[in-house]
Amino acid sequence: MRWRSLFWDGDALCVLDQTRLPHHAHTLRLADWQSVVQAIRDLRVRGAPAIGAAGAYALALAAREFSADPDRFWPRLREAAAVIRSARPTAVNLSWATDRALRAAEVATDPQQAAVRVLEEAHRIVEEDERTCRALAEAGAREMRDGERVLTLCNTGSLATLGVGTALGIVRVAWELGKRVHVYVCETRPLLQGSRLTAWELLQAGIPFHVVVDSAAGWLMARGLVDRVVVGADRVAANGDVANKIGTYTLAVLARRHDIPFWVAAPLSTVDLDTPAGSAIRVEQRAPEEVTHLGGVPVAPEGTPALNDAFDVAPAELVDALVTEAGLVRPPFGPALRALKQGVPA
Amino acid sequence: MRWRSLFWDGDALCVLDQTRLPHHAHTLRLADWQSVVQAIRDLRVRGAPAIGAAGAYALALAAREFSADPDRFWPRLREAAAVIRSARPTAVNLSWATDRALRAAEVATDPQQAAVRVLEEAHRIVEEDERTCRALAEAGAREMRDGERVLTLCNTGSLATLGVGTALGIVRVAWELGKRVHVYVCETRPLLQGSRLTAWELLQAGIPFHVVVDSAAGWLMARGLVDRVVVGADRVAANGDVANKIGTYTLAVLARRHDIPFWVAAPLSTVDLDTPAGSAIRVEQRAPEEVTHLGGVPVAPEGTPALNDAFDVAPAELVDALVTEAGLVRPPFGPALRALKQGVPA
Repeated sequence: MRWRSLFWDGDALCVLDQTRLPHHAHTLRLADWQSVVQAIRDLRVRGAPAIGAAGAYALALAAREFSADPDRFWPRLREAAAVIRSARPTAVNLSWATDRALRAAEVATDPQQAAVRVLEEAHRIVEEDERTCRALAEAGAREMRDGERVLTLCNTGSLATLGVGTALGIVRVAWELGKRVHVYVCETRPLLQGSRLTAWELLQAGIPFHVVVDSAAGWLMARGLVDRVVVGADRVAANGDVANKIGTYTLAVLARRHDIPFWVAAPLSTVDLDTPAGSAIRVEQRAPEEVTHLGGVPVAPEGTPALNDAFDVAPAELVDALVTEAGLVRPPFGPALRALKQGVPA
Repeated sequence: MRWRSLFWDGDALCVLDQTRLPHHAHTLRLADWQSVVQAIRDLRVRGAPAIGAAGAYALALAAREFSADPDRFWPRLREAAAVIRSARPTAVNLSWATDRALRAAEVATDPQQAAVRVLEEAHRIVEEDERTCRALAEAGAREMRDGERVLTLCNTGSLATLGVGTALGIVRVAWELGKRVHVYVCETRPLLQGSRLTAWELLQAGIPFHVVVDSAAGWLMARGLVDRVVVGADRVAANGDVANKIGTYTLAVLARRHDIPFWVAAPLSTVDLDTPAGSAIRVEQRAPEEVTHLGGVPVAPEGTPALNDAFDVAPAELVDALVTEAGLVRPPFGPALRALKQGVPA
């Protein structure tokens, strides 16, 4: 792997533009905080852990810019933090990482030092995510049997994180451990993160897979072709309800019908104890054109109305395990998540 | 409605090219039987009832051509019938209509007369389908309540039939009866018959709707936005198992979880008593490029393997009603279907 989803080049944030993959591996250099916010909104950088880190770097860029004007530094920094947090509403990692970076600033004695502290905190978030991914992926991979056929959705690999990935990281580490796996990749409409991004990662890793349309998942299960469903998460509520890419709820229902284990791979930073249950999660509504157009070209007749909820919520009762860096968490999730979160930077 | 899915212009079969909709309403004139077979394979004409009629016209064109050489007429006609029948394997209407047209030929005394008879039978199939659609749609529409929100998949309207349609025909007739309806249209990957074709029909009819990605169906149901699921069928087995567009099985599972009525709208010509159960239905595998490319443009990286089952099978136990031209059929389906099929041209 000769690329990273994002990195700091000493002066600016560089992100691999995921809207141009798989055809172009183009790196964007983002030298001011608003450009980072726009890149998050436009999904040039995506995946809950990756946008968390991007948010922290956005705040670092804001702090550097604002430190030239010390009198207005703190109100402007807090305002920027609010804008960054709201760039995308569903993934909790964005507000988690932004808040963490802001708190790192707040212990500084002056704006110059605050700017340094925010940048250091962003670096720390990246390093932690790399370790977290590895621990999470190893925990899941140990539980997988040789020869498993895993169905997944969206992209939860190195592109979505700062390390080996979450759900796809489990598959990858299982493969590295010598376990044979086969991956069924849901293409993940509307933006095709499965066929564009996950396929790209799996081809590079040499892991065997097939892409399928999202609506084929049930049929694959009915034919006995799926041993496990593993997905990521954008936010895990305190009770274990999971907000993730649209289609996750459907996969959870199908898996339960077929008695197939349904795993959600999520670092503890994705667990939000302030959200009591899935019903309290704000699901991002994106532009209808993402559904009615493909690559800017209309596929539906002019004037076609579309709904475009980017996420849905799978209830905890359908989740067999949350795979975290602290190992597998089984139901009931509430008490276990509260206990585990005590050891994690808030 | 100023168009028809197909019509005979006195000399050739004209079909509205559904691969070019919604952007171009282009009519293809098919003057020889192989062109019709190719148009069926390429989905230029599609929908179980419509490809049935197209198959009968293909045989009529074959009979006209072969009648110039009376000695070889019968073997060539039977060979053509076999080719036509196999143009697409899952929808039973294609072999049903082709066989019906072939039997009409077989009672003729000479090739000239046989060619006339086949053409007359094709016309009869079209006229019958128009009446059948109307009766089926009225039977379903009568059962619908005012204000229902209906979720559907693929295209089952006038484009798929020779009349008002099957599943979409029910919605349309309910609307004509003054019942308010709202349609959630699954876009229907890979070929987007929902967003391309059903949206086109609904816009023309002025019926309110939203297109959604296929994987959003479960989330719509979880949010309480769906009162009924109505889909078509490509083949209904003797026990009531239903082969239909990929994704149908998933919708049936989701509907059952949410106690939402799941209806399958199918003329009795789609019921195949020779297929005892869904497990005996051959599911067409189409080219992987339909998944990995859109409009000829790759969306996945080069070398991405894909599976492309065009259909799946929903078991009878998940079907609340089969809506036919003879009214609603409720479980257990087997005895009722056997009784009803006795009054239908075999």
